[in-house]
Amino acid sequence: MEVIVPFSTDRPKSRLSDVLSPDERSEFARAMLDDVLDAVAAAGGDPRVLATDAVDVEPPVTVDDRPLTTAVNAALDARLGADGERGEAVEPVAVVMADLALATPAALDRLFEAGRDTDVAMAPGRGGGTNAFVASHPEFRVDYHGASYLDHREIASEIGAAFAAVDSRRLGTDVDEPDDLAEVLIHGEGRAASWLREAGFELDASEGRVAAVRD
Amino acid sequence: MEVIVPFSTDRPKSRLSDVLSPDERSEFARAMLDDVLDAVAAAGGDPRVLATDAVDVEPPVTVDDRPLTTAVNAALDARLGADGERGEAVEPVAVVMADLALATPAALDRLFEAGRDTDVAMAPGRGGGTNAFVASHPEFRVDYHGASYLDHREIASEIGAAFAAVDSRRLGTDVDEPDDLAEVLIHGEGRAASWLREAGFELDASEGRVAAVRD
Repeated sequence: MEVIVPFSTDRPKSRLSDVLSPDERSEFARAMLDDVLDAVAAAGGDPRVLATDAVDVEPPVTVDDRPLTTAVNAALDARLGADGERGEAVEPVAVVMADLALATPAALDRLFEAGRDTDVAMAPGRGGGTNAFVASHPEFRVDYHGASYLDHREIASEIGAAFAAVDSRRLGTDVDEPDDLAEVLIHGEGRAASWLREAGFELDASEGRVAAVRD
Repeated sequence: MEVIVPFSTDRPKSRLSDVLSPDERSEFARAMLDDVLDAVAAAGGDPRVLATDAVDVEPPVTVDDRPLTTAVNAALDARLGADGERGEAVEPVAVVMADLALATPAALDRLFEAGRDTDVAMAPGRGGGTNAFVASHPEFRVDYHGASYLDHREIASEIGAAFAAVDSRRLGTDVDEPDDLAEVLIHGEGRAASWLREAGFELDASEGRVAAVRD
């Protein structure tokens, strides 16, 4: 299954600016991207990076500097739409965000399996975000603004596409804010967790709630 | 499978005090408890409430006003420990928190299935909490302080118990803080979501991040 991984090279992870410098944010975002690409490949997916600018990774890269929704919809047009217009069976395509630092092959495998069984399978994130999905309905398109998970369910309903939610905490955890770093230290198994530890972050439970802190 | 649902009747959900009055917090906590009990029963579990004081629910209630860790360990002693001492096969027992307002029968079924296949199966919550687990190792006991998920993995390792994580966002979402209310409005299907709507809460995405607000 082709798996599109959108990645922003332009001021990535700005909501981590209180705890990481711009260079650190770039390094950390890249470590998360590499973890996601590895997990996709290990789950049998065929990753392709959809980046806002050139990025040096092993999988193929498509550069599209338009906003996320526009760029992803162009990619969906080129796959689902083209198959649909030719009257061919539509091959499912996945879109998996690059900041899912807890993603494992097992979690992605569940997503891909769900996507083979229905028209649209989706793993929501905290706050109603859309962290990952598989679509095989020729008319499915995205709108990443706001509580996009609810909008995407509505879009699926409007076009008559069957919809399934994928219940995964690993795929549901996108790493955007300082609180999310603790999740990477607790559950991460790859480069992003190593990067945080090497940058001096560790878990601290002294305030009751567990947080990632560094001296 | 017996499923213990700890429930505090004493100042429940105090971290919601900025958005709910004490009476409202009691009502909302009770709505979540009822949702969890329904989901447990629908998943084929046999729920038993472990409450700090009397509570009027259909399933059996055990009152134990000691701290959570002590009360749960007493319950585990009485089940796992007694089976183990008699040299009998240990029946798995589950402990599922009463504030998992997004829990569905399907999510609990995955937990129960995982628990039948290993010694300790556990669904972590945000911040390394332990939201739900199934144990069938006679020596497994809990310690809910701090990043308890990591401590519980360590305890399992020390007693030679096989451990499996259950990757569920529904079981991983305990409702403690105002931010969590949006999750209930987005994904909840039971009394807790209805209670919030009737109390005037609705989703608001105007600040970028989706929040539950009321006038």
